Amino acid sequence: MTANDTKRKRIALIASKGTLDAAYPPLILATTAASLGWEAGVFFTFFGLDIIQEDRVEKLKVASLANPAGPVHFMPNLLGALPGATKAATAMMKKWMDDANIPPVTEFIDMAQGLGVQFFACSTTMGVMGVKEDDLIKGADIAGAAAFLDYASTADVQLFV
Amino acid sequence: MTANDTKRKRIALIASKGTLDAAYPPLILATTAASLGWEAGVFFTFFGLDIIQEDRVEKLKVASLANPAGPVHFMPNLLGALPGATKAATAMMKKWMDDANIPPVTEFIDMAQGLGVQFFACSTTMGVMGVKEDDLIKGADIAGAAAFLDYASTADVQLFV
Amino acid sequence: MTANDTKRKRIALIASKGTLDAAYPPLILATTAASLGWEAGVFFTFFGLDIIQEDRVEKLKVASLANPAGPVHFMPNLLGALPGATKAATAMMKKWMDDANIPPVTEFIDMAQGLGVQFFACSTTMGVMGVKEDDLIKGADIAGAAAFLDYASTADVQLFV
Repeated sequence: MTANDTKRKRIALIASKGTLDAAYPPLILATTAASLGWEAGVFFTFFGLDIIQEDRVEKLKVASLANPAGPVHFMPNLLGALPGATKAATAMMKKWMDDANIPPVTEFIDMAQGLGVQFFACSTTMGVMGVKEDDLIKGADIAGAAAFLDYASTADVQLFV
Repeated sequence: MTANDTKRKRIALIASKGTLDAAYPPLILATTAASLGWEAGVFFTFFGLDIIQEDRVEKLKVASLANPAGPVHFMPNLLGALPGATKAATAMMKKWMDDANIPPVTEFIDMAQGLGVQFFACSTTMGVMGVKEDDLIKGADIAGAAAFLDYASTADVQLFV
Repeated sequence: MTANDTKRKRIALIASKGTLDAAYPPLILATTAASLGWEAGVFFTFFGLDIIQEDRVEKLKVASLANPAGPVHFMPNLLGALPGATKAATAMMKKWMDDANIPPVTEFIDMAQGLGVQFFACSTTMGVMGVKEDDLIKGADIAGAAAFLDYASTADVQLFV
């Protein structure tokens, strides 16, 4: 057996989307990994930065129009374009999550951090999106693409969400 | 040379989207890998569960509005919002696939399973999306995020689609 | 220490989307990796083929409707469906990129190729999307899914964008 066999496993995730439905997979995977004793890091970039901004995370929405397989299956696109459709799809997904005992995103973030999941805000896209360090939730570090690559290159699982 | 050199390669894929265009990449990659002698597993989660549901897989659609680079390039968004636009984009993609001799999704699934590709339905999001075991196509197993991580951690390639 | 410790690191990326915002992550990651001395390859498939087509790359757009967390946060969906909305979101993102000193996609591609990043056009989906070899930018090679899997299986980081 080599040293590798006893090394802690690691998962490196990129969260690039700012929709409610896209916020869950990295949080679920990172939290599950951490609860199994893995190191887990999530790198938030582009629209994904919304997930770790204090004033944005509560407002994440499902895009009813973008997803013909989304929560509101029966809704034709024209109806989907009405201002209330995103709201309806978002409310529906929140209810689904609640019914399945999956916590809201903010609670999920707390849980993940409590389990040791590391959160990184992408420094390059913070500049692009006009996100300031003060906008970020507590406990999120700032890191560049090079730092992510270094972290990911020794990870056992890497996924771009 | 070590034991690793003779181990079968493995690909672990997550299929998280329920659109027609997003159904193909995991099926193409898994089937290609299996035909090269690799182990291949696809983990269907969130809207991706539509791909392995008997009564949904035939109805997968392309989101014309979501994708400005989608099949109907000339279509402005307002037109894209009309009820017929998703239908038109879906028909166009099906024709493209057929012209390129790429089988429809249901046939592709049969082919993948015939080559030994393993299909897993995510237990957590089955609960969220209200998917029952009976809704799944034959040969799909149910597995949680921890099982996926275990499978992926020894894979040579892991991708989230 | 083994031979692995001195081997060059490698990143294998798939670019499957043809929106302006989705064009940047693979270019940023590949270019950063190459500048760190890694081998870097990007495999363009499905709508991602738009990024390496001479007559398409200049026209990449942001989908305002698809992304409730997109550039135009205050825009309700109905407004998002108006023909000008995608144009407005695209112009806004281009300005953001420019303000953050991130080059336009065409310059980024030149920079990546100058650093040795390899570009591959997916042969299977070229057929599907009706893309000809002559449509591709200079320096892009054509490769199939099997070639990608071979390249990716010895990569340190693999991501599907």
